[in-house]
Amino acid sequence: MALGEFELIERFFKRPARPAASGVALGVGDDCALLQPAPGTQVAISCDMLVEGRHFFPDVDPVSLGHKALAVNLSDLAACGTKPLAFTLALALPEANEAWLDGFSRGLFALADAHRCELIGGDTTQGPRNICITVFGEVPVLEGRSLALLRSGAEAGDDIYVSGTVGDARLALDALNGRLDVPAAVLAQARLRLELPAPRVALGLALRGVASAAIDVSDGLLGDLGHVLKASNCGATIDTSIAIELLAACHPSGNAHAADRLQLSHAQRLGYVLAGGDDYELLFTAPSTLRAAVQAAAQTSGTPVTRIGRIEAEPGLRLVDAHGKPVSGRFASFDHFA
Amino acid sequence: MALGEFELIERFFKRPARPAASGVALGVGDDCALLQPAPGTQVAISCDMLVEGRHFFPDVDPVSLGHKALAVNLSDLAACGTKPLAFTLALALPEANEAWLDGFSRGLFALADAHRCELIGGDTTQGPRNICITVFGEVPVLEGRSLALLRSGAEAGDDIYVSGTVGDARLALDALNGRLDVPAAVLAQARLRLELPAPRVALGLALRGVASAAIDVSDGLLGDLGHVLKASNCGATIDTSIAIELLAACHPSGNAHAADRLQLSHAQRLGYVLAGGDDYELLFTAPSTLRAAVQAAAQTSGTPVTRIGRIEAEPGLRLVDAHGKPVSGRFASFDHFA
Repeated sequence: MALGEFELIERFFKRPARPAASGVALGVGDDCALLQPAPGTQVAISCDMLVEGRHFFPDVDPVSLGHKALAVNLSDLAACGTKPLAFTLALALPEANEAWLDGFSRGLFALADAHRCELIGGDTTQGPRNICITVFGEVPVLEGRSLALLRSGAEAGDDIYVSGTVGDARLALDALNGRLDVPAAVLAQARLRLELPAPRVALGLALRGVASAAIDVSDGLLGDLGHVLKASNCGATIDTSIAIELLAACHPSGNAHAADRLQLSHAQRLGYVLAGGDDYELLFTAPSTLRAAVQAAAQTSGTPVTRIGRIEAEPGLRLVDAHGKPVSGRFASFDHFA
Repeated sequence: MALGEFELIERFFKRPARPAASGVALGVGDDCALLQPAPGTQVAISCDMLVEGRHFFPDVDPVSLGHKALAVNLSDLAACGTKPLAFTLALALPEANEAWLDGFSRGLFALADAHRCELIGGDTTQGPRNICITVFGEVPVLEGRSLALLRSGAEAGDDIYVSGTVGDARLALDALNGRLDVPAAVLAQARLRLELPAPRVALGLALRGVASAAIDVSDGLLGDLGHVLKASNCGATIDTSIAIELLAACHPSGNAHAADRLQLSHAQRLGYVLAGGDDYELLFTAPSTLRAAVQAAAQTSGTPVTRIGRIEAEPGLRLVDAHGKPVSGRFASFDHFA
């Protein structure tokens, strides 16, 4: 059955009328959507494009893909400490496959509903599979100052934290690409990190007024930390003896035996943590005087955080062991045209 | 030379610091951009995706393509009577070709600057060529009522207008695809309509408070009128004897001889006007009591408009000749999955 563009939108992306989402004055169906931001707020905007073969496998479960396409965008809102409001979806598809569309839209809307984030417009067209989402959030301005968390606010002496665990998404990718042998039970868990990342929206909101700078870990921990250091004009030291523990695959959850069979060298393990990418955890800095506030934000949002280093005035990024001795190693981050 | 993602953005899409654009609190370079809408306004949002081979030829001039990618989005803002503020750009490219990027960014920024519309963020990735722009505009709310022009406001008795000329973009496409023989001088002009459409932003702004409904002609005049009729729950009659004059290719501008050699049947000519698509003119309705105001808006904005029909309570779309007699004919509009 050939499905036309308008019918496709009608069937899979137009939803039953519901109470108007806060901030959305007009949704899908006209030339533009209309957002009505609350007085005293700014609109935060971010945009990510996912390409088949580059960001996802052609045969990935469409439910997971719908989830992930929105999750990576919500993660950018989280990194700025903004509350999700709405999003647009532009979709190029080789064909109007109903089973695929059904799964994709279910995964997408499940996450959207969980964050009360409304689909307000977009575009559909025929072409190589490509998913482009632009997401909108709201952040208050207090006494002329935006509460948005930016990359540029880190200062010498600040602690460096990362939420959750990192490196497992890349480990799963390498396993699926046949570049690494990973026990099935470990892969199953790591794959969830690759395919169903959980954007740290609640943590981002809880860190408003606490974190001095924040970014989400999409390109890899060191690469993304580099963006913070550049924007904040400072340097950092990372304690690799703490960071290396952040690869969840090495921490058996109910299956110690499987994790034992995961054969990773120290350098491989550290490489996944420091340069893995696709994790969508938050990397953030906060003054050391606010350690209790950081822990409170972590508890409020139900998100574990780990202190892995410190911001310093001296430019550059230094890796040290538990005794403060320099660790060498190159951990390149992901670059889409490298 | 291999160009990395960040270097690509730095070289082609990051611009010298300039006076902060009105409404933009934070532009390119963080996880989110921040828009600060003026008090008492709404943010209008629209999104279009252009795919190589579907919306543009692989060998199209990149300067034109940069222009068109933004133009089709500004056209949606125009149709809602909103003032352009900013846009995001997501770009998938098979390779980082510097000559192509140079041309594309020049075409894009020339039009952006003409409309004071700021690039505030986006994404770049490797993949089949795909350009996704999301554009943001501002529209006032007066006494609780948005001044945005919507599709849903047409009422029985309203006049129907279209701006400029329509059909030439599709005529150029057919000529370039070898489906129609068009004299070179005529094709040169028609091709400008296909490749360098001018979004009718000034007309859209001038029509605030005058037009009862509006849409931009992207899928074809009848198809887009159909969206207005559906949203407004009414019908319409179009005078084909007036509409048929709207194909510019049939009106010699400095080259009567070339236009004479354009051999089109009456049905073909009417077909281009009514179902051409890709024109980016405004189709709008206004109460017949406001004809002088419509003409004033046309003059103020320097945009010719033509009255081509009337909205009626009776559902359906009727085509008539100069004597009011029914004209038959099927003029299907463009559907991306048909």
